Amino acid sequence: MADDVSLRIPKPDASVTELVVTKVREAITSGALVAGQKLTEREMMERTGVSRTSVREALRHLQALGLVEPAPGRGLIIPALDREAIEHIYEVREAIEPTAVRLFTVRATDEEIERYAELVFGKRPSGTEVAPEAWPEAWRRNLDADRLVLEVVGNPHFSRLMEPLYARIQQLRGLSAASHERARAATAEMESVVAAIRARQPRKAEKASRRHIEAARASVLRVVDEHEQKAAGLPGRF
Amino acid sequence: MADDVSLRIPKPDASVTELVVTKVREAITSGALVAGQKLTEREMMERTGVSRTSVREALRHLQALGLVEPAPGRGLIIPALDREAIEHIYEVREAIEPTAVRLFTVRATDEEIERYAELVFGKRPSGTEVAPEAWPEAWRRNLDADRLVLEVVGNPHFSRLMEPLYARIQQLRGLSAASHERARAATAEMESVVAAIRARQPRKAEKASRRHIEAARASVLRVVDEHEQKAAGLPGRF
Repeated sequence: MADDVSLRIPKPDASVTELVVTKVREAITSGALVAGQKLTEREMMERTGVSRTSVREALRHLQALGLVEPAPGRGLIIPALDREAIEHIYEVREAIEPTAVRLFTVRATDEEIERYAELVFGKRPSGTEVAPEAWPEAWRRNLDADRLVLEVVGNPHFSRLMEPLYARIQQLRGLSAASHERARAATAEMESVVAAIRARQPRKAEKASRRHIEAARASVLRVVDEHEQKAAGLPGRF
Repeated sequence: MADDVSLRIPKPDASVTELVVTKVREAITSGALVAGQKLTEREMMERTGVSRTSVREALRHLQALGLVEPAPGRGLIIPALDREAIEHIYEVREAIEPTAVRLFTVRATDEEIERYAELVFGKRPSGTEVAPEAWPEAWRRNLDADRLVLEVVGNPHFSRLMEPLYARIQQLRGLSAASHERARAATAEMESVVAAIRARQPRKAEKASRRHIEAARASVLRVVDEHEQKAAGLPGRF
């Protein structure tokens, strides 16, 4: 037998498990699964059509990512993003993203910068607004833009920190951007970021990125406060 | 049997493993183990006096932390901190530490601020220099100061990122501060940081912290360049 014939035994369940993890992540991102919702193995098996082994493995993975947690009683629950959890996520974004954007401004090729701009804005002309029905698609592109930045920056520590947080960041993106007013402001903020990156001005790009995150943070906390006032006594559903 | 009697079986090797991990970390920090050095199970058993099981477990843990890696041939090696690894560590410090110092400035009690100042400077009067024989002790206190900041800030994501990096940060601290000139400059930089924290000026503290890390980074890279020029062809020993 030739030396280059792999003898590695494939794990048949590995990719199925990954698919379930991805599905649940996407369901949280899109709002199809909301905080406070319970997940049971049986229900997951029915909804996904995969084996108990794969469901269990996927739930273990999701728990390690902090996307589900043990429920009071039995089973697992999508944890509410409470105020403290939200603050922690924004502290991480405030620390990492401006630094990453600065390094991206130095290290990216012109092509990578244009790819980034297209992910951030889509194919629409500068200054135009995203229609509400296209918001979820825009948030997904934003995540791809964040991942492109970290890929170009190439610092494995940043990626190791951010990867487990992305599903929660997507939840917050949905919260922070889901109003016309905020969507317009966010677009203007991101135009400053992209303009500084295109001009290859790393410090200016860093500052613009910091302003954007601070504005997003303020917007999310405003939404959370309104929620809490309206729904005092109800379990948090964000 | 009463319900509150624990039936949990203690793992007898767990703490021994932890001791070995700590010893090796400290040996790397102090320079007793240097980059390029090989570690074999047999030698580790002889030097530590613990079982093969514990040594293996400790080496697995150290490998997960990136403090040892598989050597060409057999066994494990202390990886050289090459230029890229050093840049990555400083990128993380530039991102996290100024943000953490800003949040510490807001959240710390007066007592925590004084504890921080004492960890940074020791008990010596402001402006006085640390004697070279006291440098390793000062670097250990600096690590405790960093940990105090993160503890007060209370963001679990920051701690999860930084904890595996501390042993390498200590190696770099040794490199960056090991000259009278740099030790003096670092002391002055840290006095600005502490003064801003004491004055409860978060943005000023953040900026002072950023200046300190940028200076430390420049100093380390200068040392690395000198090393590389002197020892071209020799394996890196930093």
